Amino acid sequence: MSSSTVADADLPTFADVVAAADRLKGQAIVTPLVESSALNKRLGFRLLVKAEPLQRTGSFKFRGAFNRLVQLDEAARRRGVVAFSSGNHAQGVAAAAEILGMPATIVMPADAPAIKLANTRGYGAEVVTYDRWTEDREAVAARIAAERGATIVKPYDERDIIAGQGTAALEIIAQAAERGIAIDAMAANSSGGGLIAGCALAFAARSPVTKVYCAEPTGFDDHARSLAAGSRVANTPGATSICDALLAATPGRLTFEINRRHLAGGLVASDAEAKRAMAVAFNELKLVVEPGGAIALAAALEGRFPGQPRTVAVIASGGNVDPALFREALAA
Amino acid sequence: MSSSTVADADLPTFADVVAAADRLKGQAIVTPLVESSALNKRLGFRLLVKAEPLQRTGSFKFRGAFNRLVQLDEAARRRGVVAFSSGNHAQGVAAAAEILGMPATIVMPADAPAIKLANTRGYGAEVVTYDRWTEDREAVAARIAAERGATIVKPYDERDIIAGQGTAALEIIAQAAERGIAIDAMAANSSGGGLIAGCALAFAARSPVTKVYCAEPTGFDDHARSLAAGSRVANTPGATSICDALLAATPGRLTFEINRRHLAGGLVASDAEAKRAMAVAFNELKLVVEPGGAIALAAALEGRFPGQPRTVAVIASGGNVDPALFREALAA
Repeated sequence: MSSSTVADADLPTFADVVAAADRLKGQAIVTPLVESSALNKRLGFRLLVKAEPLQRTGSFKFRGAFNRLVQLDEAARRRGVVAFSSGNHAQGVAAAAEILGMPATIVMPADAPAIKLANTRGYGAEVVTYDRWTEDREAVAARIAAERGATIVKPYDERDIIAGQGTAALEIIAQAAERGIAIDAMAANSSGGGLIAGCALAFAARSPVTKVYCAEPTGFDDHARSLAAGSRVANTPGATSICDALLAATPGRLTFEINRRHLAGGLVASDAEAKRAMAVAFNELKLVVEPGGAIALAAALEGRFPGQPRTVAVIASGGNVDPALFREALAA
Repeated sequence: MSSSTVADADLPTFADVVAAADRLKGQAIVTPLVESSALNKRLGFRLLVKAEPLQRTGSFKFRGAFNRLVQLDEAARRRGVVAFSSGNHAQGVAAAAEILGMPATIVMPADAPAIKLANTRGYGAEVVTYDRWTEDREAVAARIAAERGATIVKPYDERDIIAGQGTAALEIIAQAAERGIAIDAMAANSSGGGLIAGCALAFAARSPVTKVYCAEPTGFDDHARSLAAGSRVANTPGATSICDALLAATPGRLTFEINRRHLAGGLVASDAEAKRAMAVAFNELKLVVEPGGAIALAAALEGRFPGQPRTVAVIASGGNVDPALFREALAA
């Protein structure tokens, strides 16, 4: 894959993250940074977990979606937004649109889990389904947007989305500082790379001593390999993972440009390790985490951070998991 | 059961709750007050859930235990503490003692779940087991305390324990006020009644418009019946419940005296309703709640609050549940 040039002016900055935090005040939950002294003892280092399953809609995605939507002008708000997503981004956009009184149309595969279709409709969004074998979701979304004059909200490769996700890191840094803790290393789960890119901006400005890593499931380590290669490479087609939130084929253009500059590297964990991490989050943190929300946690639990950092922060990025899969993780 | 007279001087006051909050600052977690807009819509009222599973040791019990232990003088601290409990109080006392550098001995049934024995030892406590069929745990604890000059820390019927538990309510009131919310009614799970008594003191002083209820599992509604009778009555022997944290036989002496004055009544929910509430907490709040931690939530979900309050707060009081039982709740 070619690495098209990105102009610096297109990239979000730390100031954008700070401005996003201001916009999200009173809208997004300041989720707690949790830990377990028993777990810390067992691991031999201090592990802080940002509990984004407790965020509105059950994942960090609300942050970026609200930061994007709230900046639309009156006319654009009336015409509404369109997003394509089968998961957490859909719910984040739908919930943000509902708060702002905007119409939202979400393009979802017809065979998406009933619970995700219902949740998205529950936030007042119109759901348009497509056949994932014969139709292209981006084309469907573009057609709807053109018809209605609506704004398309992409899941990660947008300046305001990245800036919004970075507010999670601002909170981590402030919450750790309150307890007098310096964070040696941090990681966040990475699909398109919006969350970790926003976090990287925040850590580079406010806690530059922290080494920042992205975390990906085995078979979907396109960021790790792209960072090593110095340009964006795609995942090998045909890989599968239970981490349905982390299946993007390549890093985003904007996100990779940021991540290339700031990340110390990429960590990888398997589906089995994600399940074990879900069970640890259940037992030690009393937190429901979905597989794709547990990869950075899994990497920490498996001791994958280079250089034996003494204090590690990870983002548990979402908790929207079907009961059947959660039961399986507890039984493993 | 006779209702022995309690002198007012023996009872904790609102000032004791405020003083406890001061002592717990930086030690106890200020747990979030969570809600789900989707759930609120479905219920037709606003439901705020205090997430005490995220408290240190996975339940509110750390609050009272720390408030009690931190007030012991140097000599008493050296001699240590003794507690009898098979569950959350054991872990609360053990963790508080560890922080304060005190020896702690916990008297637990020999057939207690391995995980609870291990967790309690994990906080550095010495665990002394007894045979629950042939030995009296209070007698075992008294003997150990006498031998070592150690202080016995009872699970609920102590002034400092009640005051410590009440700090959860202080936080609820402050967190609701921050969002501009008035709480019409609140409930907390009740076994010996320490948590709800402490909460009642806080609400009476800071939010007297709020109607305060205790919540109990079917068959263990000794508080509800005692409130109705005007004096302490015991549960009928032989009842069983999966709510292992809520099986005390009668209200405490001190706790009942407070609850008698302040509570609007008692709510009851069944084991099946507790399991459904655990599933709702999983799906909508991404929170792990144990059966005995879910009774007040269950009462709210089942619409048991009299008078159709528009805003209800409940305490999810703990999350220490075995994976097998949690899986069962998700499958129901």
